[in-house]
Amino acid sequence: MENGEAKSIGWNFRPTGDAEKAGGLTIRGVLNAIMSNIDGGDSRPVIPLGHGDPSAFPCFRTTPAAEEAIVSAVTSAKYNSYSPTVGILPARRAVAEYLNRDLPYKLSPDDVFLTLGCTQAIEVTLSVLARPHANILLPRPGFPYYEAHAAYCGLEMRHFDLLPDQNWEIDLDGVQALADSNTVAMVIINPGNPCGNVYTYKHLSEVAETAKKLGILVIADEVYGHLAFGTNPFVPMGTFGSVVPVVTLGSISKRWLVPGWRMGWLVTSDPKGILKKTKIVDSIMSLLNITSDPATFIQGALPQILENTNEDFFSKTIETLKITADICYNKIKEINCISCPHKPEGSMFVMVKLNVSLLDGIEDEMDFCLKLAKEESVIILPGSSIGSKGWLRVTFAVEPSSLEDGLERLKSFCQKYQKSN
Amino acid sequence: MENGEAKSIGWNFRPTGDAEKAGGLTIRGVLNAIMSNIDGGDSRPVIPLGHGDPSAFPCFRTTPAAEEAIVSAVTSAKYNSYSPTVGILPARRAVAEYLNRDLPYKLSPDDVFLTLGCTQAIEVTLSVLARPHANILLPRPGFPYYEAHAAYCGLEMRHFDLLPDQNWEIDLDGVQALADSNTVAMVIINPGNPCGNVYTYKHLSEVAETAKKLGILVIADEVYGHLAFGTNPFVPMGTFGSVVPVVTLGSISKRWLVPGWRMGWLVTSDPKGILKKTKIVDSIMSLLNITSDPATFIQGALPQILENTNEDFFSKTIETLKITADICYNKIKEINCISCPHKPEGSMFVMVKLNVSLLDGIEDEMDFCLKLAKEESVIILPGSSIGSKGWLRVTFAVEPSSLEDGLERLKSFCQKYQKSN
Repeated sequence: MENGEAKSIGWNFRPTGDAEKAGGLTIRGVLNAIMSNIDGGDSRPVIPLGHGDPSAFPCFRTTPAAEEAIVSAVTSAKYNSYSPTVGILPARRAVAEYLNRDLPYKLSPDDVFLTLGCTQAIEVTLSVLARPHANILLPRPGFPYYEAHAAYCGLEMRHFDLLPDQNWEIDLDGVQALADSNTVAMVIINPGNPCGNVYTYKHLSEVAETAKKLGILVIADEVYGHLAFGTNPFVPMGTFGSVVPVVTLGSISKRWLVPGWRMGWLVTSDPKGILKKTKIVDSIMSLLNITSDPATFIQGALPQILENTNEDFFSKTIETLKITADICYNKIKEINCISCPHKPEGSMFVMVKLNVSLLDGIEDEMDFCLKLAKEESVIILPGSSIGSKGWLRVTFAVEPSSLEDGLERLKSFCQKYQKSN
Repeated sequence: MENGEAKSIGWNFRPTGDAEKAGGLTIRGVLNAIMSNIDGGDSRPVIPLGHGDPSAFPCFRTTPAAEEAIVSAVTSAKYNSYSPTVGILPARRAVAEYLNRDLPYKLSPDDVFLTLGCTQAIEVTLSVLARPHANILLPRPGFPYYEAHAAYCGLEMRHFDLLPDQNWEIDLDGVQALADSNTVAMVIINPGNPCGNVYTYKHLSEVAETAKKLGILVIADEVYGHLAFGTNPFVPMGTFGSVVPVVTLGSISKRWLVPGWRMGWLVTSDPKGILKKTKIVDSIMSLLNITSDPATFIQGALPQILENTNEDFFSKTIETLKITADICYNKIKEINCISCPHKPEGSMFVMVKLNVSLLDGIEDEMDFCLKLAKEESVIILPGSSIGSKGWLRVTFAVEPSSLEDGLERLKSFCQKYQKSN
């Protein structure tokens, strides 16, 4: 029955269709399609190299300190009530103090808004900025949740390139060429999803100067903050908050390996108070008034989580990611039809280029990923879903033995399809 | 600095203002304004008779079974990952089974979508229905989150009356007079917020027949489900799902006294599958793809919470609410300028009528509530914020000793302002 028929049997309601348009753009949607191509008859385990959620693997289990903080909060019965819409004060203060360790000025708890993971922080930021005719600059390749939500709230998108031959730095000339007086913001994701790069202080400083010149806000997605294991240390974009107002988005999802806990933040890294003066902050608070909040007891646990986590836990994660990134990079070098322009040094991903002209019977990278799922039970994200046709996004945040198994299968899959001449 | 000035200093971004318009309609906003009128010099405790969150009171502490379920889920490390956007299967199954206890047909897990409390269930339902020119019928008095979200997503609102002299039943003639071919749904809240009533089987059956005749969906907000302590038992609207498609919204917030846990559901109570055929279900799933989910470990705890909670815990809550409703009803009878048309028999609220003509120096019910806060540190919600000018909403879900204290202060406040003749 089509929607028109609903009318004929007398029902007035019909869906808007807005969400369908936006929902088709998500990574989850693409990965679901690829997953459904898995051959049920394959007795080998499915190797998920598609998404950034390693929390199911034993080597990526969260710290007991975090679990204990939750247990203590929920059994205290102090956090069963609704929270204030901006979040409870001790948790906002704890996030400010956590971020202040790396900033040249001091954030106050009033700069911090607690959100349902980084996801809701993205939703809120984009919704607040989406006035008619406004446009936003997004990275390509990027994280398509930005595209999905921009589409949903009617914010025009323009894409600037990340440059594979320049350590995936931002094409700042391209940014300037795209912007006009209706451009309200640019998004940077650092450490990089999907590119696995970590921006230098110098490059971030240039980003700030460019944004200032254009009169636009910098939205700094730092959900992978501190997950840096190469030569560049992680520098928060908020460092340049005096040059240009920055909205920093973050969460405990990745560094604490608990994406399912849905505990994130939106922080105005803006010591000059420009976001207050331009009423962006009022608008953020109004929007939070009519949306849901993180569970109060998870907020109640947040100060303990941020303060009591042992440095050893962080080092162990970094060490594991460094090992798995190396495994991934080295194994991919053995594969003819795939090349990697930049060794990953942060986040959980690497972007690699697929040369389909070296393969027989593979149409494009989507076809490659579908057949790989079907024949080898390995899941990889096709680049077309994140703005980069001809590329693949591979996550290396996987138990080392599974990662090696998955990459070995990837290699033999490529050999099978390799052109004979 | 005004928004215009932002431009003059060279910043392009400005807030949309959409959320501000919607956010002004919320109960939280009104209560915050009243709370800010509290006199800091008053040494007596503030008595909150304004909002439906009794979880801070010892007599309304949740059951240990619920706390234990959370502890067990979070320490299992099985629920640290992202959940599917519709919720994890065991939790969806548990909600279906929980609701099936009271239905004449069987829901399947596929009918259940997990949401961040009932709040997100409202957001999703209204957003999906908000096609251009559509309108929705809302109860007056009601729960203004519906108005806020309808305003935000551009859904036209029309209000039908609840009739104080007929046990707050719905004015169904009024409903028919309001509806046209663009009317997509009507909302009923049962047990009633703010009226404290519980609809009979017969009345709900009439609601179903009316909605069927009009070709509209029934959105049944049952967040206070089972909190009935008068003569009418709680009957879920889903009982009439074969007559008219019903979207049932619920959560563990009220019956388990944990509103801060943000665990709710949207359920299609629709054995004929009309919501599937008309693609409303597809649209719900698409929207859930681009919004945040309840924390996975809280979903993981849900089956245990729904299955293992002792009947004694529920009876104790009902018994306490019955006692506090009685205290409230009887004390209000002693107050001249306030009358109560209907003794509460469900939920946590009662609506009472304020006769300002019997008072000196009180302008209207907002003025009454502001002065009451300032002079007696008692918080009550003015009816104007929920569609009923001249009325007050009082919650009786308060520790009995505090409730008596608060109502005594209310009484002496009214006596102080009573006209002398």
